Amino acid sequence: MPVETVAWRDGSLHIIDQTRLPATFSTKALTDYRDVITAIQRLEVRGAPAIGIAAAYGAALAAQEAAREHAASFHEWLTGALADLRAARPTAVDLAWAIDRVGEVVGRAQGPPERVAAAIREEADRILAEDLEKSRRMGRAGAALLPDEACVLTHCNAGGLATGGLGTALAVIFAAHEAGKKIRVFADETRPLFQGARLTAWELQRANIPVTILCDGAAPWIVSRGEVDAVIVGSDRIAANGDVANKIGTLSVALAAHANGVPFYVVAPTSTVDLTTASGEGIPIEERSAEEVVRPFGVRIAPEGVSARNPAFDVTPARLVTAIVTERGVHRPPYEVSLGSAGGPIARGFSA
Amino acid sequence: MPVETVAWRDGSLHIIDQTRLPATFSTKALTDYRDVITAIQRLEVRGAPAIGIAAAYGAALAAQEAAREHAASFHEWLTGALADLRAARPTAVDLAWAIDRVGEVVGRAQGPPERVAAAIREEADRILAEDLEKSRRMGRAGAALLPDEACVLTHCNAGGLATGGLGTALAVIFAAHEAGKKIRVFADETRPLFQGARLTAWELQRANIPVTILCDGAAPWIVSRGEVDAVIVGSDRIAANGDVANKIGTLSVALAAHANGVPFYVVAPTSTVDLTTASGEGIPIEERSAEEVVRPFGVRIAPEGVSARNPAFDVTPARLVTAIVTERGVHRPPYEVSLGSAGGPIARGFSA
Repeated sequence: MPVETVAWRDGSLHIIDQTRLPATFSTKALTDYRDVITAIQRLEVRGAPAIGIAAAYGAALAAQEAAREHAASFHEWLTGALADLRAARPTAVDLAWAIDRVGEVVGRAQGPPERVAAAIREEADRILAEDLEKSRRMGRAGAALLPDEACVLTHCNAGGLATGGLGTALAVIFAAHEAGKKIRVFADETRPLFQGARLTAWELQRANIPVTILCDGAAPWIVSRGEVDAVIVGSDRIAANGDVANKIGTLSVALAAHANGVPFYVVAPTSTVDLTTASGEGIPIEERSAEEVVRPFGVRIAPEGVSARNPAFDVTPARLVTAIVTERGVHRPPYEVSLGSAGGPIARGFSA
Repeated sequence: MPVETVAWRDGSLHIIDQTRLPATFSTKALTDYRDVITAIQRLEVRGAPAIGIAAAYGAALAAQEAAREHAASFHEWLTGALADLRAARPTAVDLAWAIDRVGEVVGRAQGPPERVAAAIREEADRILAEDLEKSRRMGRAGAALLPDEACVLTHCNAGGLATGGLGTALAVIFAAHEAGKKIRVFADETRPLFQGARLTAWELQRANIPVTILCDGAAPWIVSRGEVDAVIVGSDRIAANGDVANKIGTLSVALAAHANGVPFYVVAPTSTVDLTTASGEGIPIEERSAEEVVRPFGVRIAPEGVSARNPAFDVTPARLVTAIVTERGVHRPPYEVSLGSAGGPIARGFSA
């Protein structure tokens, strides 16, 4: 039962406002591509694949506006809008990938601006449909890695809300659950914005999969006590050497898993693999506002005048990663060879 | 400039209510030992050495009550009260250590109940005075480990608020600062109760030492980027083999420090060393209410019906600990020999 994280209806982009979950389930209809950028920056829509899909539909909105109001300078104006969408957030490569894919459609498109706008919207539809199919494939491939009764630890939200509707890491858990395996999940709360406690818990509860929240600092201890059979996380960008950027706090779990012989699996579509980035050192890490840290729920926790660092992502070195699961299957080190072997650089396209 | 974390005035025990810091600085006067137990359990007074001192004064309050109302069964009644104080929280061994020390005073004491009560109060005064002296010694010994310009990461609060007024880990930072070294500090916020963001930041700001807050999940990333010269933490119990129990999240930082060749120092008085516990496996770990995790500041973050695990402490294995600093100096592995060498089992007494 996928979540309708991102959907196109009646000429506008509908998103679930994830900042209000789990207390309130509400959707927003966006008709201006600038509002799509704002929604991405405010994390109303978040998760690497979901950002890519939303941005593709944002490009369709921009093309509609360009056709309507800037027909004379259509391509130039649209190119600027696509660049703005592409720069909404820096770390997740799926965003750049989706906008680049839209850009290729624009380059190929024939006919009047309205037809180009329609072609972009159709490309966004394809990206969304392909995303759901890739989630199903990642789910099946990853589920085979889990024993019949497994306690899985996950960090942040790599579920339907982070993708077109089924997820990456959670797609594996959903698939194992549907295959009849007894899966229990520890979900790190994921400070500063609590995506684990809010969103992952919401998705797992909805799917009747037992879930228990942990403070991020408790995860290494629970792992070291032998309570976790596997760690499964998503990713925002995977470098060519297998280094994995994901939500801040992932590295902590990876170190604990490695120290205790617990497998650490990363689940992400090939659009998350960036073969143009050689290693994690080349991945730009977004730094967000200190307010997210020092003022949770509007309550200031630190004394006035004391600030915070707020890196939104960290990089887990490939040596800590047991396997990477994509829609093509299970990849094991050395990652550069494995990920690139089947049909050339996989970062260039979804299809196998 | 020590904090007056715990003080005896006019026949009652005065504590800073640490649950209200940093927004509000308020003190409480406790006249009933049961209120001391409640204050310890609610973390109004917290930190292993501070709990021990507060409990010793709590014993003085209990003895006053016993002398006043239960003179006929003085020793029996007092023994029960001491047992209740000793059981207020399970992990920090300083609590048991302080109550055992009071128990020895009771065993030795001559004369009427009033005189025994006075002897207990004097013993509590001695424990407090010794604690301040030990903090000064730990500070000096530990400060010598830090370079002239150092960025130090600490977790939770091991400062004046956790002790008689000067701290353990923070005593080292204060001493290095006072010796003219340029020290900057990253303070982990320390979920679920934010002692780092609230209390450590408050103490360091008060001492004009630059401090920056990190979410707990960000600490390993900041360490792996080479931004931290040393990690310094306190402890609630150190086993005979050097395994260190400390606030949940400490293990995460220790794993990151070890993986990146950053020294990981534990600072604690010898009263925290429990030679009767062979290794970390024997240390009881307090599990606290899930509400602390899922309802920070009264705001429910996880969906209704989803619970949490809330271990209050974790155990860092000795292999990850570079050195342990006590009032006797800097101890390096193998810890059992080093800690026990000077004058017999150091867990038995403060004096060298």
